[in-house]
Amino acid sequence: MNVLHDYWRSSASWRVRIALAIKGIEWQSHSHDLTRNEQRDPTYLDLNPQGLVPTWQEADGWSVGQSIAILEYLEERYPKPSLLPETPRARAEVRSLVQVIACDIHPLNNLRVTRHLRDQWQADEARVTDWVCHWMREGFIALEERARRQGSSEHLHGRSLTLADVCLVPQLYNAKRFGCSTEDFPTLNAIGAHLSALPAFRDTRPEMHPGAPR
Amino acid sequence: MNVLHDYWRSSASWRVRIALAIKGIEWQSHSHDLTRNEQRDPTYLDLNPQGLVPTWQEADGWSVGQSIAILEYLEERYPKPSLLPETPRARAEVRSLVQVIACDIHPLNNLRVTRHLRDQWQADEARVTDWVCHWMREGFIALEERARRQGSSEHLHGRSLTLADVCLVPQLYNAKRFGCSTEDFPTLNAIGAHLSALPAFRDTRPEMHPGAPR
Repeated sequence: MNVLHDYWRSSASWRVRIALAIKGIEWQSHSHDLTRNEQRDPTYLDLNPQGLVPTWQEADGWSVGQSIAILEYLEERYPKPSLLPETPRARAEVRSLVQVIACDIHPLNNLRVTRHLRDQWQADEARVTDWVCHWMREGFIALEERARRQGSSEHLHGRSLTLADVCLVPQLYNAKRFGCSTEDFPTLNAIGAHLSALPAFRDTRPEMHPGAPR
Repeated sequence: MNVLHDYWRSSASWRVRIALAIKGIEWQSHSHDLTRNEQRDPTYLDLNPQGLVPTWQEADGWSVGQSIAILEYLEERYPKPSLLPETPRARAEVRSLVQVIACDIHPLNNLRVTRHLRDQWQADEARVTDWVCHWMREGFIALEERARRQGSSEHLHGRSLTLADVCLVPQLYNAKRFGCSTEDFPTLNAIGAHLSALPAFRDTRPEMHPGAPR
């Protein structure tokens, strides 16, 4: 059986769960509680020396970390339904939107960074929230402009589901979780509302994860 | 003519220059001086709403931002010589190494973040350097472990040049620039020394850029 090493609240893990649902791939979760540092257990570090979730592991033991690498792998291994457009230019545009979220928003705001700010920079909660919302806003400004130009209220790129949509919804969820205002991003909110109602997004959201608190 | 919007010292731009050299693609540089905030000029923001370099622009005006999206595009558009292996698993492994650098090291340490720490968090130079070296070290620990396991002193993945090598050398350059110790990463240093002597890496390094100070 395929295993996704994840954590209910990890938005990078949620990206992968959405793609798995869209592509109808079977898997089971091996949950690592980040609040208890379970992702730093030696057994997990042996699998993923970064000590981050998610990691994708297949039945014969082969595994790979980094959510975007996993999404590209799933796309190559299970090409239908496709989450990348056909032409190299359109594919590049989707990957560019993906990287805005996956490189320039999320890694600045994930648990290891907010913890570091609290522990090493004596940041209180207000200061941490400022930090998180600042980088979110910087990225959302660019995404909103891209989305506004193409004028769809259903998809971040083109007229069908892509990896950009897969990454957008968990990032909007994080904005809500941290209390970051998204009122300046009406197009992103409209797209998010449309996507969140689709089963692959709705049924994989953090609260639905078996490891989520009840 | 193809144009790369870049800046001599931007390590994300250097990644693209290396791939262009390996693939023998013609291009010219449009340099944006980040120290003067030229990447925030309205004309450039119109091209790249993030206001970051690099952006790749082709003769008919089409453009795309985000270095990894550009590298994947160049790989699809100019497949020889290839910078990704053949099998989906090996490609996933390379992309995972790429994302460790492109998502989990570099975006935490680039100019907009170190500036933010100075301006909004009153960080002095020592504190900024601590920050930069901390995240570099976290990423290098994982990369060193991966590299050590496969035992090559020439390539980060497998026995030929990949996008992982393309990203490693500019990151090692940043380590040196910020004075971050790399003595715990002998395998990465050996690979870096091998790669840095290759023309595609040597001839594209920041000091060789037409925009570099003389």
